[in-house]
Amino acid sequence: MSLSMYDVTVPVFKRMLTNLLAFLDKAEADAAARKYGTETLVNDRLAPDMIPFRGQVMIATDHVKGCVSRLAGVPVPSWPDEETTFDELRQRVRKTLDLLDAVTPESLAGSETRDVTLKLGGNDVVMNGLDYATQRALPNFFFHVTTAYAILRHNGVPLGKRDFIG
Amino acid sequence: MSLSMYDVTVPVFKRMLTNLLAFLDKAEADAAARKYGTETLVNDRLAPDMIPFRGQVMIATDHVKGCVSRLAGVPVPSWPDEETTFDELRQRVRKTLDLLDAVTPESLAGSETRDVTLKLGGNDVVMNGLDYATQRALPNFFFHVTTAYAILRHNGVPLGKRDFIG
Repeated sequence: MSLSMYDVTVPVFKRMLTNLLAFLDKAEADAAARKYGTETLVNDRLAPDMIPFRGQVMIATDHVKGCVSRLAGVPVPSWPDEETTFDELRQRVRKTLDLLDAVTPESLAGSETRDVTLKLGGNDVVMNGLDYATQRALPNFFFHVTTAYAILRHNGVPLGKRDFIG
Repeated sequence: MSLSMYDVTVPVFKRMLTNLLAFLDKAEADAAARKYGTETLVNDRLAPDMIPFRGQVMIATDHVKGCVSRLAGVPVPSWPDEETTFDELRQRVRKTLDLLDAVTPESLAGSETRDVTLKLGGNDVVMNGLDYATQRALPNFFFHVTTAYAILRHNGVPLGKRDFIG
């Protein structure tokens, strides 16, 4: 077996997005049990200048579609950021999982050395696919999934580390 | 270039641990500026049944030493979990960076297919090095670094996404 860019990205994204769907289910069940509206969770944040839960979910999915598209050398799909409910967030995560199902190992083959261009602070920054995936896309993805988890935990949703790891 | 297990682990750990050291510096500066003790931050947590900041830093480093040792097929170094101050946490992170400096690409070569045995819930669970690194060690590592960041942000420490990504 030789290691591929597919191996270190797509299965990781799939597993964590599946776990994220389970966070949403547990949060919804907690809201029903404790009789509060899920809109509280959707709009909650850990600090006034951090983005709310719904933004964490949206940006997590953005890093997934950005990563697999850029590594494959195809345009990144543009999705409007309009999700405001748990159902809509779930649909966005499912849409991202569908997108991952369509990615083949062949389409990412050799992308570790291919140039990827990112817009950062208005400037074009070029890096190779390996650095982009491992030092940008995956850390950002994990950041937003973890922050989504943290917002739910901070609100008392009964999640544990096993839910995070899957 | 062919992708290696070293490529997808060691440089990622190094970068994020370096960023974690910078979080500690900024938190300490914030404590001095706002005149509160860093022990508040060291012991703070996002939920009463989550581990405190110092635990997040300790466990993040545990996943690093666990990952590179298991992939190399050497015993995982055992470190006492006694850090209670920012200086001690910094020393632990630096010790982890020193450990990473000693890891060579050769020592991890081919570890994607080697069996790794983990104790999970008292049972031995065997998985290959690829699944262990990408689905266990790295997600756990990012989880704890992100949660450490989240605790600081929740306390008003002026950190931003750029500090997280480095």
